[in-house]
Amino acid sequence: MTTRQCAASGITTAEMVRVAAYEGLDPEYIRRGVAQGTIVIPKNARRTFELLRGIGKGLRVKINANIGASPKDSSVERELEKLRAAVHHGADAVMDLSLGEDIEAVRAQILAASPVMVGTVPVYETVYRLARAGRRLEEMTIDDFLETVRSQAEQGVDFMTIHAGVNLQALSALESSGRRLGVVSRGGSMLVRWMRHNRKESPLFEHFDEILDILAAYDVTISLGDGLRPGAVLDATDRPQVTELVTLGALTERAWDKGVQVIVEGPGHVPLDRIEENVRLEKDLCRGAPFYVLGPLVTDCAAGYDHIAGAIGGALAAFFGADFLCYVTPGEHLRLPGVAHVVEGVIASRIAAQAADLARGLVHAVAREKEMAEARRDLDWERQYELSFNPGHARTLRESSGMADGDTCTMCGEFCAIKMGRKD
Amino acid sequence: MTTRQCAASGITTAEMVRVAAYEGLDPEYIRRGVAQGTIVIPKNARRTFELLRGIGKGLRVKINANIGASPKDSSVERELEKLRAAVHHGADAVMDLSLGEDIEAVRAQILAASPVMVGTVPVYETVYRLARAGRRLEEMTIDDFLETVRSQAEQGVDFMTIHAGVNLQALSALESSGRRLGVVSRGGSMLVRWMRHNRKESPLFEHFDEILDILAAYDVTISLGDGLRPGAVLDATDRPQVTELVTLGALTERAWDKGVQVIVEGPGHVPLDRIEENVRLEKDLCRGAPFYVLGPLVTDCAAGYDHIAGAIGGALAAFFGADFLCYVTPGEHLRLPGVAHVVEGVIASRIAAQAADLARGLVHAVAREKEMAEARRDLDWERQYELSFNPGHARTLRESSGMADGDTCTMCGEFCAIKMGRKD
Repeated sequence: MTTRQCAASGITTAEMVRVAAYEGLDPEYIRRGVAQGTIVIPKNARRTFELLRGIGKGLRVKINANIGASPKDSSVERELEKLRAAVHHGADAVMDLSLGEDIEAVRAQILAASPVMVGTVPVYETVYRLARAGRRLEEMTIDDFLETVRSQAEQGVDFMTIHAGVNLQALSALESSGRRLGVVSRGGSMLVRWMRHNRKESPLFEHFDEILDILAAYDVTISLGDGLRPGAVLDATDRPQVTELVTLGALTERAWDKGVQVIVEGPGHVPLDRIEENVRLEKDLCRGAPFYVLGPLVTDCAAGYDHIAGAIGGALAAFFGADFLCYVTPGEHLRLPGVAHVVEGVIASRIAAQAADLARGLVHAVAREKEMAEARRDLDWERQYELSFNPGHARTLRESSGMADGDTCTMCGEFCAIKMGRKD
Repeated sequence: MTTRQCAASGITTAEMVRVAAYEGLDPEYIRRGVAQGTIVIPKNARRTFELLRGIGKGLRVKINANIGASPKDSSVERELEKLRAAVHHGADAVMDLSLGEDIEAVRAQILAASPVMVGTVPVYETVYRLARAGRRLEEMTIDDFLETVRSQAEQGVDFMTIHAGVNLQALSALESSGRRLGVVSRGGSMLVRWMRHNRKESPLFEHFDEILDILAAYDVTISLGDGLRPGAVLDATDRPQVTELVTLGALTERAWDKGVQVIVEGPGHVPLDRIEENVRLEKDLCRGAPFYVLGPLVTDCAAGYDHIAGAIGGALAAFFGADFLCYVTPGEHLRLPGVAHVVEGVIASRIAAQAADLARGLVHAVAREKEMAEARRDLDWERQYELSFNPGHARTLRESSGMADGDTCTMCGEFCAIKMGRKD
């Protein structure tokens, strides 16, 4: 039985108990959430890993870090370093988005080394398998795709992004939409290309049940990709996006019926005032399935600092109910991240997650703020470092001022407001 | 006549025309806003500077960068470098928060060099003047304070933070509030200390009209300081804060009656879900006077990355109607900023301001997003750099990937979604 089938049958698995312990919640709450589909516990039946996490309603907001080698610049060691950095700074999941010849080898090593859940986008590997056989993307068959899904599931991948909602109906909405920036999802663009060339329905949509059968066999969670998400804030919440989302809602129910846990992916690029609407729409159309947002970026003009634009959107989305934040690195839109960029991206997402968890009144978030207020009141610098998201960085910053002796900071020197405001 | 008196008399000044041109609005809209108090144009009658700006309702969100030497680490040249960096990256105002022996000299040079409005907190200098005379803060008289205000006004300061709302009533609310982290405003803590020691009403509150007379004589804008703003998210919107804000509302009207333009300062540290309430409260209690927020930080645990926590809060506050964002640097709470930190702080605030301006539908913000979407669609990297907030940084990031030739980025390499999704 899959995790979802266990939950539906009233069985509380060991994983549900572990997730409950981490969240400080009752295991029965977790079981019920998994049964209802509002909570997922992504974990391949073949894999075990240390930092098992639930994602969904009532739980702490979780963070994903995208890593993976580029086709022209591939180094397994560097990707493993990114993995370690992401996990060390608090990522709850990584997605291996590798492209390139070494795609299986890179993934095998990431799966072996990762203490957190690992996700992939199987259409990427499918394209490489085709190329090796001298075939083009446009020649992809459902068997090519299923073979990749099966081999990745066997390898132990915990969740897979599958763009099954990019179908002819969504494509038709795209063609007539007058969108400024066409398709920016890599997987989405591959399926659009396939459909335009073949003038046929997407094989991923047509054969969705066969995909689900493989996922169910290995208890892999499906992350329903948003292949037509807008790539510009001015295109937000347009017809192609919502057309695809309506389909994702229907696919969610079909996956549930097969015992497969579901996450739904969302934008992307969304102005501040449309974020609530985007979250509510997903929750309504997909019957409360966990929502996985990419940022979202609240402006397109933050190139070089996209982690900040993403933290603004992510905090707000999570406050309104998004459950899972895909980090954005400073150089998103400009280059693949280096290790330092991975750290920046994870920290920015953690700040967003903490802000949302606090605003939603989650106990652990409130407790952390309480401790920080006390550490500040007591001018306890060591404790302040510990409670910050990157203690080494906080320490370095203060010590770099050359004035970090004693109980003062360089901001006020002798005119410390906290000391001045004390009753003495 | 002051700017406010001109506006009230139906006179459209040259400054109102300049502000209107920058905003793309009608000068009459600006005049009416200044007359109503919902817009201010901070500019000392004695000073002229290039980048004159209005702050308030319907205008682009503006950004302030705090600079200033520390008592123990003072270098005029470094502060001037911070000024140049802040303005270069888009600050609309700087506040000189210098403490130390050179306080007048540093300010004189900043005023001479600054192409943007300059603000100060006169109680800081007052304390240094007292120390030179061998007297303690607790011995401050209203004459000591007025003398500082007058000399700074003569020097050309455009706006001054004056914590006139920290009175006995607010102190009483503070004493009984059970707040976790007492007083974190440096100016506020000085007045609290003074009142506790002297057991008398604050001279700044008692002699508010005399302060206003000086400000009116030089057309200096008053920024009503929030000396009892909470310094911890868990203390947000507590009795001392709101007690002081109620007083600030009354003081706003008194300042208006004397022809003085008013900005009201606000928190600080505010959970995401309380930001709207904080903005609406200020707008109601202070009859629409422009709101100047310090961040606000949506979590206290972002030490080392407080610019990100501040950008989240600032974007949201500005969307709900805050008009003026005081930047937060990464090392806020840890050290005075260096030049690189000033840049990080300004950029983070600009991202927040753009996000809010876009969400409010401001024409310039929408136009910028439109251009960026087109530059992305066309894979026009030069234009993307130009439209980002720090073109040099964006360029460096992409070029550092070693793969920035031609029209591709390292994110997707040959599998560029934009190219793949094009009809061909």
